[in-house]
Amino acid sequence: MNNRFSFIGGKQGKWRVVDVRGIFGLSLELVERVNVVNDAVGELPLDSSWVLQSFTSNIRYAVRDEVNTLRAVQPVLNRLEAVCAVLIPIKKSVQWWEMPQDERRAIFEEESHHTAVGLEYLPGVARRLLHCRDIGEPFDFLTWFEFGPEHTKAFDELLLRMRASKEWEYVEREVEVRLERDDK
Amino acid sequence: MNNRFSFIGGKQGKWRVVDVRGIFGLSLELVERVNVVNDAVGELPLDSSWVLQSFTSNIRYAVRDEVNTLRAVQPVLNRLEAVCAVLIPIKKSVQWWEMPQDERRAIFEEESHHTAVGLEYLPGVARRLLHCRDIGEPFDFLTWFEFGPEHTKAFDELLLRMRASKEWEYVEREVEVRLERDDK
Repeated sequence: MNNRFSFIGGKQGKWRVVDVRGIFGLSLELVERVNVVNDAVGELPLDSSWVLQSFTSNIRYAVRDEVNTLRAVQPVLNRLEAVCAVLIPIKKSVQWWEMPQDERRAIFEEESHHTAVGLEYLPGVARRLLHCRDIGEPFDFLTWFEFGPEHTKAFDELLLRMRASKEWEYVEREVEVRLERDDK
Repeated sequence: MNNRFSFIGGKQGKWRVVDVRGIFGLSLELVERVNVVNDAVGELPLDSSWVLQSFTSNIRYAVRDEVNTLRAVQPVLNRLEAVCAVLIPIKKSVQWWEMPQDERRAIFEEESHHTAVGLEYLPGVARRLLHCRDIGEPFDFLTWFEFGPEHTKAFDELLLRMRASKEWEYVEREVEVRLERDDK
């Protein structure tokens, strides 16, 4: 299984871009489509404006009870009805990364309830977390969400709650790429 | 600061190989020298037998008290007197990586005392931990140690204690590359 994923912003791919919103810091260039590729991409493909490289990895914060609860309710990706997707690249501050594990965990869950709040939006919203800080990318994480149109309002509320949390005080760059599936 | 490090086993570099020992699983080919490069290396350089790619990252298990204690006593790399080095590539099992954070932490520290035992060998032994599982490498970690010859016996004891720990039940491949500085 290849753990590498690349998100190519350009003119290809089945995900049509509805909007690119800069939430904190520098945004990304508006493109027509995002092509999601399950591999590393050596260089920027022709006809594209940006490529974000990333990888899936092991669990970094969740404990056994949280993992069990998540696994019981989280939906898979690529559901037929999930025609809405959102790609959210995030970069956290140096201050965040210099903290030891216990302090990051305390802010992430005990203070911000990241997993607990996310759970409230399951099984409507499917999610894949991707890492990219360690491979010299401009962002630290990419999160990819998929849901049916009827869950859009709930998803918007989830974003507001996350951005109001203590954890988000350490977010220094965030972009929101809204997409719709369009297989053509 | 480039967080990428490559260890090239071949005929170049200031670290002369004294021995390559397969501890668990497949060993590495015996080479004359290891060249430590603070960058990613695209392909296997001429005249070399292997290259191990890796990166430094944030703290994964240590809590605030442990980090403070470590920082107060850990020596830097490249000390003039530290002419002995050991490179230890390790791969852990699928079972290890599928555990949530709390279970890995409990085995790592509460059961195996990884940080506490390591602390007993400071400030004699300098150490750099490098990660490589996420970038598709054959190992999960590379640890690089540097010390003066008078600390060799203590270092050997440290390895025996680590390998007798609960954490090491999850190690499925381990190689020990012993080196001596030889600037020529």
